[in-house]
Amino acid sequence: MGKERDGEGQERPTVSLSPSAEFPPLSAPDLEALRRLGDQWRVDESARALPVDPELRPTGPGAAHPRAPNEEFRPDQPGELTTTPAAEQPDTDVGRLAVRIRRVLLGPPLSSGSVLRERMRKLIALPILSSDLLSSVAYGPEALLTILVLAGTAALGLSLPIAGALVVLMLAVGASYRQTVRAYPHGAGSYLVVSDSIGPRAGLTAAIGLILDYVLTVSVSVAAGIAAITSAMPALTPLAVPLSLLVIAALLTGNLRGIRVAGNIFAAPTYLFLIAIGGMTLVGLTQAAARGFTVAPAPPVPATETLGVLLIARAFASGATSMTGIEAVSNAVPALRPTEWRNARTLLTWMVSILILLFAGLMFLVHLNGLAPRANETLLSQLAHRTFPHGPWYGIIQAATALILLLAANTAYNDLPRLLYFMARDAYVPRRFLHMGDRLALSNGLITLSIASAVILTAFGGRTQSLIQLYAVGVFLAFTLSQVGMVNHWRRHREPGWRRRAAINAFGAVLSAIVLVTAAITKFASGAWVVVVAVPVLVVLCLRIRRHYDRVRQAVSLRPAPTQLPSEKSERDMTQEFLPQRVRHLLVVPVARFDQTTLRALAYVVSLGQPSLAVHVSPEDQEADRLRDEWTAWGDHIRLEIVVSPHREILEPLAQYIGQLHERSPDLTLTVVIPEVVVDHPWQKVLHSRIEHRLRKALRRLPGVVITSMPVQVSDDSHHPSR
Amino acid sequence: MGKERDGEGQERPTVSLSPSAEFPPLSAPDLEALRRLGDQWRVDESARALPVDPELRPTGPGAAHPRAPNEEFRPDQPGELTTTPAAEQPDTDVGRLAVRIRRVLLGPPLSSGSVLRERMRKLIALPILSSDLLSSVAYGPEALLTILVLAGTAALGLSLPIAGALVVLMLAVGASYRQTVRAYPHGAGSYLVVSDSIGPRAGLTAAIGLILDYVLTVSVSVAAGIAAITSAMPALTPLAVPLSLLVIAALLTGNLRGIRVAGNIFAAPTYLFLIAIGGMTLVGLTQAAARGFTVAPAPPVPATETLGVLLIARAFASGATSMTGIEAVSNAVPALRPTEWRNARTLLTWMVSILILLFAGLMFLVHLNGLAPRANETLLSQLAHRTFPHGPWYGIIQAATALILLLAANTAYNDLPRLLYFMARDAYVPRRFLHMGDRLALSNGLITLSIASAVILTAFGGRTQSLIQLYAVGVFLAFTLSQVGMVNHWRRHREPGWRRRAAINAFGAVLSAIVLVTAAITKFASGAWVVVVAVPVLVVLCLRIRRHYDRVRQAVSLRPAPTQLPSEKSERDMTQEFLPQRVRHLLVVPVARFDQTTLRALAYVVSLGQPSLAVHVSPEDQEADRLRDEWTAWGDHIRLEIVVSPHREILEPLAQYIGQLHERSPDLTLTVVIPEVVVDHPWQKVLHSRIEHRLRKALRRLPGVVITSMPVQVSDDSHHPSR
Repeated sequence: MGKERDGEGQERPTVSLSPSAEFPPLSAPDLEALRRLGDQWRVDESARALPVDPELRPTGPGAAHPRAPNEEFRPDQPGELTTTPAAEQPDTDVGRLAVRIRRVLLGPPLSSGSVLRERMRKLIALPILSSDLLSSVAYGPEALLTILVLAGTAALGLSLPIAGALVVLMLAVGASYRQTVRAYPHGAGSYLVVSDSIGPRAGLTAAIGLILDYVLTVSVSVAAGIAAITSAMPALTPLAVPLSLLVIAALLTGNLRGIRVAGNIFAAPTYLFLIAIGGMTLVGLTQAAARGFTVAPAPPVPATETLGVLLIARAFASGATSMTGIEAVSNAVPALRPTEWRNARTLLTWMVSILILLFAGLMFLVHLNGLAPRANETLLSQLAHRTFPHGPWYGIIQAATALILLLAANTAYNDLPRLLYFMARDAYVPRRFLHMGDRLALSNGLITLSIASAVILTAFGGRTQSLIQLYAVGVFLAFTLSQVGMVNHWRRHREPGWRRRAAINAFGAVLSAIVLVTAAITKFASGAWVVVVAVPVLVVLCLRIRRHYDRVRQAVSLRPAPTQLPSEKSERDMTQEFLPQRVRHLLVVPVARFDQTTLRALAYVVSLGQPSLAVHVSPEDQEADRLRDEWTAWGDHIRLEIVVSPHREILEPLAQYIGQLHERSPDLTLTVVIPEVVVDHPWQKVLHSRIEHRLRKALRRLPGVVITSMPVQVSDDSHHPSR
Repeated sequence: MGKERDGEGQERPTVSLSPSAEFPPLSAPDLEALRRLGDQWRVDESARALPVDPELRPTGPGAAHPRAPNEEFRPDQPGELTTTPAAEQPDTDVGRLAVRIRRVLLGPPLSSGSVLRERMRKLIALPILSSDLLSSVAYGPEALLTILVLAGTAALGLSLPIAGALVVLMLAVGASYRQTVRAYPHGAGSYLVVSDSIGPRAGLTAAIGLILDYVLTVSVSVAAGIAAITSAMPALTPLAVPLSLLVIAALLTGNLRGIRVAGNIFAAPTYLFLIAIGGMTLVGLTQAAARGFTVAPAPPVPATETLGVLLIARAFASGATSMTGIEAVSNAVPALRPTEWRNARTLLTWMVSILILLFAGLMFLVHLNGLAPRANETLLSQLAHRTFPHGPWYGIIQAATALILLLAANTAYNDLPRLLYFMARDAYVPRRFLHMGDRLALSNGLITLSIASAVILTAFGGRTQSLIQLYAVGVFLAFTLSQVGMVNHWRRHREPGWRRRAAINAFGAVLSAIVLVTAAITKFASGAWVVVVAVPVLVVLCLRIRRHYDRVRQAVSLRPAPTQLPSEKSERDMTQEFLPQRVRHLLVVPVARFDQTTLRALAYVVSLGQPSLAVHVSPEDQEADRLRDEWTAWGDHIRLEIVVSPHREILEPLAQYIGQLHERSPDLTLTVVIPEVVVDHPWQKVLHSRIEHRLRKALRRLPGVVITSMPVQVSDDSHHPSR
């Protein structure tokens, strides 16, 4: 979903996904700076005379090389090779096994060229985009009544007026989003709309709200879907949490595989659900009509709270979860057929109409049948039992409910990774969310979503009604900001009729804001505080991530920053540093004792023909003298400096000595060549001092110090020989 | 303890500790190989013309450098500097804080020259070496009776015959060790004796037995010491485990500090204990004599097991823990004044005599007073209460018992790190046990002992009588092997009178072996199985460690192994590889995008004047074309090879490409230059792909591939600027 045609990608970079997003092109000024810099380079011709063919062309009889040269890389054009799957095989047994398991689960890798760019017909788009919204009636009405019943059976009478208020809210938000779709025809997700019309921080806040919403969509929908199943089969109740986790794992696997390709089969559950619930509503109303619309008495429930404004507000806010998912169309405008915005508006109208019909019908039926929430059976299941005491209809309704809920969870799997991708492009979240996995899925986003929702679901013991307490705040935060953004948008553009449009959005914004504040206050103690705390914390975290990336970008930029801090380099200085003819070397070899590793390191530095220095840190004078004698025996080919460390510290004196060399000649490029023993098995690491590792860590902090590791492989012969 | 005079160190390397043990000298043939190799080196004179003074001499006014050149390093002789404590300061705030805390706890560092080499007088050696042995009577008799009483009160009558058998055992083992001390006057620890007289594997087994023994000595002694305190102050009983851990921490701190310097004050507790227990025995016997040696009836205890041979054997084996620590003198012979072996024998005679007097006296008194073990009060405490119902004597006895037990634990702190040092020199345990900390203590051994004994003590809830179940097996394994070794020794040397000597040792060996087998069988289920399993597992582990070190030593040896495997190199080949004039280079720069890090890496390789190749892995053709255009704009100064990886894997294709370059020209030294972003805070690592890190890991497995990291520091300005 949601890809654009190739040709359009250039004009509207905001909503298209690209496998190359991790490799952004240079800007024109950067390219100019690069050209100016390159002009000054003086390169010795010897650098081009390569001792080996980089194109890996076959040389003579193939037997000379263990593997045919073209098994892993095939020639493409001069200077370019293309990998074959063999080149993606990891080098270790464990790694290869992991790849094999991945292949079985996820299928063969897809190449970058096969990014999906198809458009959806309205009749396909309707079920796919509305599953999240429509499935909400499976838990929304119950959430409303669960709160009301706290004030006893009598309070249930208030359910119809509250439902009426919710229908008004649905109409208002629906109308509001119709306008959003028109105004942002190229993709109108809250993050992009709010960033554009209010500002990046507000957009970030809306995005955080949506992220929490998506994570909770998965938790709530899966929990509610499993509840539909356990209502029908009570024996499965104790297994609710493991079953939910299994479903999340299946959703993850399916999405990593890229089930969007087979998206059309997802149309079925939504239509099945529509037919099942619609049919039940009709049958129920007919039955009620036959009874003369008498209201059955609800089972007596003792009141635990008094009926007040706060409780009613809380019930209203809980019922508002019935409209989660209404924003789905606005995210997916570019995935529709042209004219996209017009189709999107039509879809939105259909969806809101169906939602209101289902929601109002269900609320009315529940009222007529005098049903009250129960711990082990969902309200919908009670209603289905009451309406169809016999026959297969009950089972069909429960199955359709479970299916659409799982499909709704799948919506989050489609949308959250895309949102993270856009945020990563703006550097608010780790750049790895830009990476498309080997099946072209945004794997890191999928995995993050699965882990987060699984943790939340487990933490709340898989109880839908507990999870719902957290739900409304994030959604309505995004709704509110998105509609405030639209008001801003109209005011800024002042197109004809903008006042009316702004008024519609403002009305939607006010209603959404009321739900947001109500939900945050009334559900604060029962779980919403998690979201109230998480939103600002995550916003600050994202801003800090952005700041870090900005710093890195500036630090590695080809051009110096326009507003220069004293510590930063001018373009002239930078040029100096990056001209090979200006680089001056000193190679430093720390020597512990004379063995092959040392000799190889010494031969390496000498062969580079640059000034070289060996350093030995010794615990006592006798040892220092002994090493100097050995040095002389070898021929004293390189200048040796011994640092006696009478307290037997090795690492710190070495790091400090190299640091002082650097301080004395900051222009010098110091290369520290460290021999390193590479063992076969991780446990063998404890047998070695790993001083290379610690030295590398200590030296990394020094600017201008380059660290060269010379691995020496030590293989246990009995085990696998290297490669 | 246990150091030799400087002059003697050369002759008897087996028992002296050296701070340079981590830097062993080259053997004569190695030195010869080094000299032959060095003769063939051709080194360009430019390598000696250093662009910076390696001696860090002051240059002009000191203000030019942030720190005075001599703050961290002071000149020693030409080509040699000595560090000052400033050079040992870590570079980070956390590191510096850790050093400050260590200084407060452990005192200033000691230099290698101050290794302690003093000798002990007999009257000082007696209490220090005997604390482990004599303190055993604080729990040994109780361990014996705890088993006997399982068969009911009546079985307690068997305590005196069993005590008699134990006295015979003490005499036999004591006589046996007298001979060991004579035969190995330069240090007669079981590890060295058994390795020498039976073989390295038997020596290793004895060493493992001793290691387990030392660890348990700390656990048991500390637990018993705390039990002496909680017997006197029952309110402290619930705090027994935390108090024990506190004591272990104090012992660790004290030993890291090097309290051996003040070793003489350790004489006091032993003498205090001797006087206290001796006095109590005399007073108790006097009281008993006054009562006409009537035996008080023991409190009625119901029998839970039947009295059989097995139970008696188990009681005997448990009582044998009274003689743990008898081997202490044989370890410490070189620490005594000359003639060492003669003084050691005298000491051993004194110690065994005192042990037998104390043990027999206590057993007799317990019998006369009709005492039986109780859960919350030690037997010794009961006896002291009975003997001194009033006055300060009870308190003094408990305090002396607690003190000598802690001192006994300290014995393990002296001996185990030394044993690990000798084993590390033979490559059976990690080489880090050779390292002397900044207070000249064998810190790693001390820390290992503390952790192991704290874990065991906690696992057994600090209950002395549960811990003792594990105790006897390790000790008597070492006793038995050591005495069998002595029999071998006499048979091999056949000196005059060897038959009589061998007979004495054989008698000791047989008795020890009986206790060993008895303990292993009878206490198997109640805990000894841990030791029975641990000994072979640890022996195998040590042998595998040894094999690994042997392989490494051979792999890095300056001379090829005499028995050559086909995969190994002949001396001629080796020479080729280590002659700088034969090294051929190819520098490879993986390029992701054009930025400062890339340009710096490219300038670096070009400035080295060697053949160079840039490699770019691209996810799709468009991106590849874009980068090639940028490359041309820069000036195409280095040959660029693009690898298109349509499935978007970066790491594996890169590693495989480099691997194939290596396969085509195995003689070539490939240097892969990887720019690496260095962040300030660990959390920022997740924001970067760390592909450098993963690439380094993948390339490390390829022989002949050298990995160069070019760190680029990215500092958050608000925080500490680099250095």
